[in-house]
Amino acid sequence: MTYRAPISDMLLALDGAGLRAAVEASYYGDFDTEITAAVLEEAGRFASEVLAPLNRAGDRHGARLQDGRVTTAPGWADAYRRWTAAGWNAVSGPEDFGGQGLPLAINAACTEIWSAANTAFGLCPLLTLSAIEALAAHGSDTLKTIYLGKLVSGEWTGTMQLTEPQAGSDVGTLRSRAERASDGSYRIFGTKIFITYGDHDMTDNIVHFVLARLPDAPDGTRGISLFLIPKFLVGADGSLGARNDIHASGIEHKLGIHGSPTCTMTMGDNGGAIGHLIGEENRGMRCMFTMMNQARLCVGLEGVGIAERACQQALAYARERRQGRAVGASDGMSPIIAHPDVKRMLMQMRALTAAARAICYATAVSLDVAARAADPDVRTAAAARGALLTPIAKAFSTDIGNEVASLGIQVHGGMGFIEETGAAQHYRDARITSIYEGTNGIQAIDLVTRKLAADDGAAVSALLAELSDTVKRVEASNDPAFGTTGERLRDALGSLERAGKWLLERLSSSPNDALAGATPYLRLFGSTLGGCKLAAEALAAYQSSAEFGDPRRYVTLARFFAETIAVQAPALERTVIDGADAVNGADAVLLA
Amino acid sequence: MTYRAPISDMLLALDGAGLRAAVEASYYGDFDTEITAAVLEEAGRFASEVLAPLNRAGDRHGARLQDGRVTTAPGWADAYRRWTAAGWNAVSGPEDFGGQGLPLAINAACTEIWSAANTAFGLCPLLTLSAIEALAAHGSDTLKTIYLGKLVSGEWTGTMQLTEPQAGSDVGTLRSRAERASDGSYRIFGTKIFITYGDHDMTDNIVHFVLARLPDAPDGTRGISLFLIPKFLVGADGSLGARNDIHASGIEHKLGIHGSPTCTMTMGDNGGAIGHLIGEENRGMRCMFTMMNQARLCVGLEGVGIAERACQQALAYARERRQGRAVGASDGMSPIIAHPDVKRMLMQMRALTAAARAICYATAVSLDVAARAADPDVRTAAAARGALLTPIAKAFSTDIGNEVASLGIQVHGGMGFIEETGAAQHYRDARITSIYEGTNGIQAIDLVTRKLAADDGAAVSALLAELSDTVKRVEASNDPAFGTTGERLRDALGSLERAGKWLLERLSSSPNDALAGATPYLRLFGSTLGGCKLAAEALAAYQSSAEFGDPRRYVTLARFFAETIAVQAPALERTVIDGADAVNGADAVLLA
Repeated sequence: MTYRAPISDMLLALDGAGLRAAVEASYYGDFDTEITAAVLEEAGRFASEVLAPLNRAGDRHGARLQDGRVTTAPGWADAYRRWTAAGWNAVSGPEDFGGQGLPLAINAACTEIWSAANTAFGLCPLLTLSAIEALAAHGSDTLKTIYLGKLVSGEWTGTMQLTEPQAGSDVGTLRSRAERASDGSYRIFGTKIFITYGDHDMTDNIVHFVLARLPDAPDGTRGISLFLIPKFLVGADGSLGARNDIHASGIEHKLGIHGSPTCTMTMGDNGGAIGHLIGEENRGMRCMFTMMNQARLCVGLEGVGIAERACQQALAYARERRQGRAVGASDGMSPIIAHPDVKRMLMQMRALTAAARAICYATAVSLDVAARAADPDVRTAAAARGALLTPIAKAFSTDIGNEVASLGIQVHGGMGFIEETGAAQHYRDARITSIYEGTNGIQAIDLVTRKLAADDGAAVSALLAELSDTVKRVEASNDPAFGTTGERLRDALGSLERAGKWLLERLSSSPNDALAGATPYLRLFGSTLGGCKLAAEALAAYQSSAEFGDPRRYVTLARFFAETIAVQAPALERTVIDGADAVNGADAVLLA
Repeated sequence: MTYRAPISDMLLALDGAGLRAAVEASYYGDFDTEITAAVLEEAGRFASEVLAPLNRAGDRHGARLQDGRVTTAPGWADAYRRWTAAGWNAVSGPEDFGGQGLPLAINAACTEIWSAANTAFGLCPLLTLSAIEALAAHGSDTLKTIYLGKLVSGEWTGTMQLTEPQAGSDVGTLRSRAERASDGSYRIFGTKIFITYGDHDMTDNIVHFVLARLPDAPDGTRGISLFLIPKFLVGADGSLGARNDIHASGIEHKLGIHGSPTCTMTMGDNGGAIGHLIGEENRGMRCMFTMMNQARLCVGLEGVGIAERACQQALAYARERRQGRAVGASDGMSPIIAHPDVKRMLMQMRALTAAARAICYATAVSLDVAARAADPDVRTAAAARGALLTPIAKAFSTDIGNEVASLGIQVHGGMGFIEETGAAQHYRDARITSIYEGTNGIQAIDLVTRKLAADDGAAVSALLAELSDTVKRVEASNDPAFGTTGERLRDALGSLERAGKWLLERLSSSPNDALAGATPYLRLFGSTLGGCKLAAEALAAYQSSAEFGDPRRYVTLARFFAETIAVQAPALERTVIDGADAVNGADAVLLA
């Protein structure tokens, strides 16, 4: 079955994320929320008609490396041309360089759509997006003039090259080296691994963004510089010249996202790859940090997209497939959706997906406001909020992508294990999202050691106050349809607050205790935040049922989430606080 | 890396499961626990040397169907011959037919070992085991004389053929038909799907056990008969005759266990497959129930085996791979096992695996005692215990197999997503175990509607009393190394008891409420039971450190499990009790 973008759910989530409020505060200039639905519908149509039908072919055929060139699956290059021609690559790109300058939040919703339709395809523009961000923020005017417009339109794609065999999470240990050339350019030598779309046949040129080390650079992350290295050299007029000395020398055989070529890149077999410095020498990591929030958010959105796709597929199957007779049903076999255990799985899928979406969109709006608001205090607060939410958006949403894809298989029973069904592909594709762009463990550590700790917990406190307000409104509604939602969310907020305080205290007194609790704390945060966001959406849906449809949909979803997922918050609090000792004593188990 | 059977862990778990007590009560005749370690070590050696090296080749090559014949991956047929020659197929087989008559509990530990080394290979003998059980319990003497010895030795393998396209979980809707022949045999017609090792090249003959319907049979499960259908007809002297009319007509392209052929079987293209009735006409489902407990337990053991394999692989990687510097470490990069977040993942893997093992072994001992004790009251109680534990052993352990395999990928970071690493294969292989032999949802429904409900909860009450005794002993130990283990398990027991009572009450008053809570109840049961079992093992390890090594290993594991997994019990209780309304109201979400 194909994919249909869930427009009402997305619009409600954007609203809940604060898009309308940000527009009303004029942070988005003359952007009008009226066009949001139209953009999403158009994106949904393109995704259903062009991208989704190529998803399975990409999985089966995969990308291939032959004679030093990577070819993508049949139909992909054509789809990419249609994608750029329709302007989808330029949605949130800078207007000065041909972009449409739409809110990042709109592009976030679109990113969910592309990922849902075809995760491996949608990944390519995400890399280009990071390249655009780095170049726009740190590139020289000359480089911008030559490269930025082409990247914004998607005529050329970008890559981000950090990883080396010995330098994964620990980027500071990378060894690729750069030498200064007399003309102000550089020659780069080295090998990079796990480079997404490192080579492909969808565009005439590829613009590589490569981290390398100058001969006199200090050790560690303070000695890393960022270079722009085109696949084909580019003249000042934009014309393509000679092939540069950077080549795909290997391609990985992966669990999923087969359509996306993951390359080993070799530079310097022939005198060195010609590169141009982005930003200052030895400040390459700073450039990376510029784009980290958006890149991580985008991976979170891949989790949401895959989850949504898995939901739709499981739901369609559960409505068609008949087995057993449900309690109270008349003669014959019932569609399996009538069985409570199947309903429970589908509700779990829907609730987790909606919560992850709410968190990701809220992150996007925060990043938008941080970049666009006029008032510097508003920008600062939004930046702190965006920084806080980013690791949660990334890790919680990708964990959920995996969980929901797994439930999607389960709903299909034995058919779910058969590749032709398609449910298994979502499961395989989702698995990388918890790993790349900083593993989810790294996200949890970032949350605790940087985001929670920043300003002694100020960003967390501000968010907790807002969430507490939501809980009050749920309680004040006295709506029996909410069940015990208010109570569960109230408990969860208390747990989140206490766990955060405990972690902050331990961060200085006993950092390993805090690190041991990072992952359960992130899950506690995501569950509480997601639960409150869904409750807020349900309240909003009551007020605007004309816009979002039957509010019972959202109330039931919020209730399910609170009673099945957010309810785990007190246990997670205990795990954070009590669990550190056993982790610290793990050597007795692990090294025995 | 290869696999090493974790002998000490297995011996402690067998002890905790009651093997020693059962031997001392003479339930096992003259079996001596002294030989247990020797058997497991020998099995471990065979698994490491013969089966584990073929695991990846089986995954890459897969089984293939060509010209109506299935061939297994290179080396598999030879390994199978070595397996039967070494007597491994006959461990728990009946002694009258060449079996060794060892406890099922010993064979359970061996099953874990085979599954860990090579899940797809180890699956074949599991089907044969079910065939042996069915034939031994319900077959005529003639059939036993001809077939049973060959199945016990493994010279021939068995298949179990239930599923048809329209008849999955709902077996009663199967349509394969059987006609009576004048010589007392039957002719079978129809198509079966998802038949594990339906055809292969490892043995001269295959003995199919097929469910079909006689022309005058009543509808539903009361009209199903079980037939033995040999691939090649067999003379009274055991000699092979003509090819029977049952053929593999298709083979599935699956997410995992590629080495195991999953066949579509067609019967009757040429006059009908010649079959022999097992048991009575229309009583085929009763024969199936005979072997259901052991078959489901074996699938649970596959979960344990895959989890153990994933643990070992992740642990080895985490000790070698260096990234970042751990807090308090000296210069250079630390092995990632030194990072608390990685320790936490590895502890989670180890703790979940140990709990699932404890539950599965306890199930095996119960089934042994039910079959072997002289005292009928002891047999009845053990049978009730075994019946209660079976769905938990199956579903909880296979959920854990998936969870642990996923963590195994995560520990490997980016390398985990690359197929050559091997971590991804465990993840793919594990996924079917939650589905086949009754989906985990079916297990949960069985637990609530049959096992909990039997005798108004008597089996559950008896178990709760035992677990409560364990908790008292933990509390009485006053050992600070247990942390809050006693408190967490006490809470969990309370939750388990209350949730069970609520479900029992709802089963009659509002069955859909009970069905909605089945899956969280099973998880609650598994977490509580697993936590108590690990605590009991830790107490036992203190008493016999000479036998099981440093007891801190087991105390730390029990503590981690209690504080990180069993701690979720109160939330699961709430989900069972409060969550039913949202599930019952799910149509507002799912059909919107």
